[in-house]
Amino acid sequence: MKKIAIIMGSDSDLPVVKKAVDMLAEFGVPYEVHVFSAHRTPAEAAQFSRDARKNGFGAIIAAAGMAAHLAGAIAAGTTLPVVGIPIASGALNGVDALYATVQMPTGIPVATVAINGAANAALLCIQMLAIEDASLAEKLDAKRRADSEAVLAKNAKIEEQFA
Amino acid sequence: MKKIAIIMGSDSDLPVVKKAVDMLAEFGVPYEVHVFSAHRTPAEAAQFSRDARKNGFGAIIAAAGMAAHLAGAIAAGTTLPVVGIPIASGALNGVDALYATVQMPTGIPVATVAINGAANAALLCIQMLAIEDASLAEKLDAKRRADSEAVLAKNAKIEEQFA
Amino acid sequence: MKKIAIIMGSDSDLPVVKKAVDMLAEFGVPYEVHVFSAHRTPAEAAQFSRDARKNGFGAIIAAAGMAAHLAGAIAAGTTLPVVGIPIASGALNGVDALYATVQMPTGIPVATVAINGAANAALLCIQMLAIEDASLAEKLDAKRRADSEAVLAKNAKIEEQFA
Amino acid sequence: MKKIAIIMGSDSDLPVVKKAVDMLAEFGVPYEVHVFSAHRTPAEAAQFSRDARKNGFGAIIAAAGMAAHLAGAIAAGTTLPVVGIPIASGALNGVDALYATVQMPTGIPVATVAINGAANAALLCIQMLAIEDASLAEKLDAKRRADSEAVLAKNAKIEEQFA
Amino acid sequence: MKKIAIIMGSDSDLPVVKKAVDMLAEFGVPYEVHVFSAHRTPAEAAQFSRDARKNGFGAIIAAAGMAAHLAGAIAAGTTLPVVGIPIASGALNGVDALYATVQMPTGIPVATVAINGAANAALLCIQMLAIEDASLAEKLDAKRRADSEAVLAKNAKIEEQFA
Amino acid sequence: MKKIAIIMGSDSDLPVVKKAVDMLAEFGVPYEVHVFSAHRTPAEAAQFSRDARKNGFGAIIAAAGMAAHLAGAIAAGTTLPVVGIPIASGALNGVDALYATVQMPTGIPVATVAINGAANAALLCIQMLAIEDASLAEKLDAKRRADSEAVLAKNAKIEEQFA
Amino acid sequence: MKKIAIIMGSDSDLPVVKKAVDMLAEFGVPYEVHVFSAHRTPAEAAQFSRDARKNGFGAIIAAAGMAAHLAGAIAAGTTLPVVGIPIASGALNGVDALYATVQMPTGIPVATVAINGAANAALLCIQMLAIEDASLAEKLDAKRRADSEAVLAKNAKIEEQFA
Amino acid sequence: MKKIAIIMGSDSDLPVVKKAVDMLAEFGVPYEVHVFSAHRTPAEAAQFSRDARKNGFGAIIAAAGMAAHLAGAIAAGTTLPVVGIPIASGALNGVDALYATVQMPTGIPVATVAINGAANAALLCIQMLAIEDASLAEKLDAKRRADSEAVLAKNAKIEEQFA
Repeated sequence: MKKIAIIMGSDSDLPVVKKAVDMLAEFGVPYEVHVFSAHRTPAEAAQFSRDARKNGFGAIIAAAGMAAHLAGAIAAGTTLPVVGIPIASGALNGVDALYATVQMPTGIPVATVAINGAANAALLCIQMLAIEDASLAEKLDAKRRADSEAVLAKNAKIEEQFA
Repeated sequence: MKKIAIIMGSDSDLPVVKKAVDMLAEFGVPYEVHVFSAHRTPAEAAQFSRDARKNGFGAIIAAAGMAAHLAGAIAAGTTLPVVGIPIASGALNGVDALYATVQMPTGIPVATVAINGAANAALLCIQMLAIEDASLAEKLDAKRRADSEAVLAKNAKIEEQFA
Repeated sequence: MKKIAIIMGSDSDLPVVKKAVDMLAEFGVPYEVHVFSAHRTPAEAAQFSRDARKNGFGAIIAAAGMAAHLAGAIAAGTTLPVVGIPIASGALNGVDALYATVQMPTGIPVATVAINGAANAALLCIQMLAIEDASLAEKLDAKRRADSEAVLAKNAKIEEQFA
Repeated sequence: MKKIAIIMGSDSDLPVVKKAVDMLAEFGVPYEVHVFSAHRTPAEAAQFSRDARKNGFGAIIAAAGMAAHLAGAIAAGTTLPVVGIPIASGALNGVDALYATVQMPTGIPVATVAINGAANAALLCIQMLAIEDASLAEKLDAKRRADSEAVLAKNAKIEEQFA
Repeated sequence: MKKIAIIMGSDSDLPVVKKAVDMLAEFGVPYEVHVFSAHRTPAEAAQFSRDARKNGFGAIIAAAGMAAHLAGAIAAGTTLPVVGIPIASGALNGVDALYATVQMPTGIPVATVAINGAANAALLCIQMLAIEDASLAEKLDAKRRADSEAVLAKNAKIEEQFA
Repeated sequence: MKKIAIIMGSDSDLPVVKKAVDMLAEFGVPYEVHVFSAHRTPAEAAQFSRDARKNGFGAIIAAAGMAAHLAGAIAAGTTLPVVGIPIASGALNGVDALYATVQMPTGIPVATVAINGAANAALLCIQMLAIEDASLAEKLDAKRRADSEAVLAKNAKIEEQFA
Repeated sequence: MKKIAIIMGSDSDLPVVKKAVDMLAEFGVPYEVHVFSAHRTPAEAAQFSRDARKNGFGAIIAAAGMAAHLAGAIAAGTTLPVVGIPIASGALNGVDALYATVQMPTGIPVATVAINGAANAALLCIQMLAIEDASLAEKLDAKRRADSEAVLAKNAKIEEQFA
Repeated sequence: MKKIAIIMGSDSDLPVVKKAVDMLAEFGVPYEVHVFSAHRTPAEAAQFSRDARKNGFGAIIAAAGMAAHLAGAIAAGTTLPVVGIPIASGALNGVDALYATVQMPTGIPVATVAINGAANAALLCIQMLAIEDASLAEKLDAKRRADSEAVLAKNAKIEEQFA
């Protein structure tokens, strides 16, 4: 199975990004976790991106806050799908990161998830791998059913509470 | 090759969405185009979504404006990757559609591109198909090189103009 | 008397939504409380919505945060009035939920109240039932007069404090 | 049948508000149209509001732009349901009107629709009247089905165009 | 000397509004403090406003949060200058109140100060009274000089700290 | 009678500011019109401000766009009331000017009107002069009544149109 | 004298960027103009940036719209001062570019000017060169005086018009 | 070496501004720290600005919050480069200060850094001084390399943690 790369712009993003790691682990999808900065280590970030496909990666998750260039910088170096997680930080609390991640020019898409939406970034990568992997697709469906049942269980509890 | 579904919430979105169609055609990726409304034809949208994987689709693009629920509604019915295009329309000019498309809850990701970013939505789907399709990946790389050379040509022209 | 349905997208919304429950209880209006997610239990949400009128409901309150599709999804399945409560949550603190709830397309209205405005959502439903129920209308007027007198009492106290 | 009042803050709002008038006419719901300003004719607006229920109105639509106080001012004088239409005008293009209409304090709800969402404001009032009027409810359902079929027809046309 | 009226929409605004009271007291300008709600006690608010000039007021300060209609409602009833204080409260933290206070239509101005800017609201009223009151103008100038000297003292301290 | 100074930051603001001039002329209030820039002619702006009271001015209107410092710079030099008009210009269309005008620190108020609200800026100054000028107050009341009657006439016309 | 590099992300930015070119030409400051894209030609942009100081540049201007990464990408490769011009384009009209340009992380500053503020970007670079170049500083002062006199001339004209 | 002036609008800004002081000290660049208010001590601020070049300054940092006029006021008095730090304070948390600092009119640039970006403001000034100071440029490069190595060290640690 192709690997997923998770790159964060700063190790201070780890508490958010950890949810992506956990989701990949839960699905048994292989992954690597890195800290690369679009601004402080641009060469390493570019090198990683250019080599990602040949190094066995299927998709890349990039998480960054404020003027969040990381996902775009990674996307500039590869034609693998790149998923961007805008991180809420600083005075603008993630609106800046959302705009800097999603408003990409034609030719270089970044698949953007919600501000701090790390778990969904991982799910999106798993969905991509599952396009050609029926077993993984079934795991996704099973999780979806479990999520649905969890809501129904909460519903039953709330219905009872207010009956 | 898996097909890509392009769904728009209203046929008035076609001028924007057309760029996604053109991009898929340029890459020779098979596609279907539909008009389904999350609000006016919820049953048909849900049915399409639930059947999409078994009907041979690899990913779904959903485009909508204002309280843009379409991508999320489609994503609720499938575990295929769903790419959302927020359409600029109405008084808020797409900020509403961007938030309504990207701020999805955990479990149901929507891969969001820029407001009106239809060409990138298509590219993102092609990138997903190319994870396991080396020939398609090479086409993506070729297009990337062509885009790069187009910029360099413009650079040469501008450099000359101001030399 | 017709019943009011209160649906929340997640049981974490209960602390806000509870004010709607309390208001309906204060007015003796019958109600049910449910947890349905537009994304995790779309079929159940749609089924509830389609059956609501024949099941004796007069109006439906739907509360959700972030890309708040719940009220719109419910409104897509019924022609009963649907009242949407945008919930403040996540990095955007409810602006996303407000836009996703109020900016509905023509044909599928959602009566939107303030962010976290659960008490007013209930009052709005009571006002709707009171259109043809003079006794309920009188209760609303009485509460309005009581609210007014409470302000005047506070005014008297403040006037005295600064006299 | 109860009447619906449509109040606009300025006759310059008529091009938008006209869609509410047309919708009520289409459903055969009786209505009156007025121009009252919360700021320039506060006494008349308040008087109209206080007398609305006894004058046979079932709900009131209020449309205003910028610091859009009209719906709130009307709501302060009656316990009938009040539907607010934020009008896009001035430099802020309706964001100001949206906030001024929807962010009402507890006790005085305004059922807010989308910026310039006049047709939906009328539909919402019709939905309210239809709570106890099965014939009107059926008309709403019929219109909903017609809207749905219109989308499906557009879908058929688009599917054919891109087949 | 004319009196200044300070009206707040809710007694919960008192911690902010208190700074206006203190400023008027510091300048020896007579004032009254009231709680009137544009929505819960519209008649009393309107009555106060209509009578304000003949009751000896020179200007009125109105403070409110969220859909902050109070200053506009007061301004609708008098041609005295009305100063509006947008209060930071609720999920939008005062942006709603700012827009609802400042974006008034032609003919009914509200002199708006910063969000929570209660001290400046009082200073503005004192400045108005000082147009024809040289003694009050001199007090304002003295306070301005004192403020200036306070900054210079802080400057001296900081200069020393970093010398 | 005291004079009103109207200062604009650029002569390109004249089409907006002209409405303030016209309103003052309509009321027979003496005025002067100037172009001073907080940034390009700071010394002249400061000098004008410092001398304004002794030169017979009762209040100052300052209009500027973008990083609209003019009203604040004028207010820094005088304790006369300063009314700020945020001008809609540039990419942010006046939101920048609104924030730069209204969010003043304690001690230096600027009475801010709506974006491009030049007529109201003039009315506010006239209201200030009318605090101690019963004849001017009566003119303001007369205009208010005329505005009210104009709305009522429009109402009569609209009522007739839709009767 | 050191050269100034002007880099735009797309030749469609030229109408805005031209004002920077003209300003440098007016001051006789040597410059080069280039088109490099942070996303389409990242290697060329990085190479240019890394070599800029040794190639005789004193500062770099970078102009880009939407998810405007160009200035940050250039700043990542050099310790020369980098001036960023956010370009107004797309549905968000430059707010996205402003945030993506200015909200840089610690260590990699970008000196950001107003949206579309190309002339000021050039002036800023000239000011930097003038720190150690008294003749250039004098030219800047002369231009400032000329700007000031132009405002005073407009003031004289407006004063006369309204005298 | 030229000195850098750091001016804050209020001593309450010191906790943020301190990072600029520390950065200049780390580089051995001479500096002065002052408190001047554009509104409370406009004359002193203007005087400082007009004399800054002849007093040996090479650039000026100005930090202020809310209607942050300080950087613009300083820039109006000098043709030295002025770096503006928007401070996050008050209900708008720095968006107001960002707009008031960056949206300067043509002719008077302010080099704006991120909200609360004091360290980068200092780095920017050091970069300016380093244009003609190879030793300082080398220090900047060394710090950049150290920052880069710190990221790589964090990367190594994270890689190990998740290997």
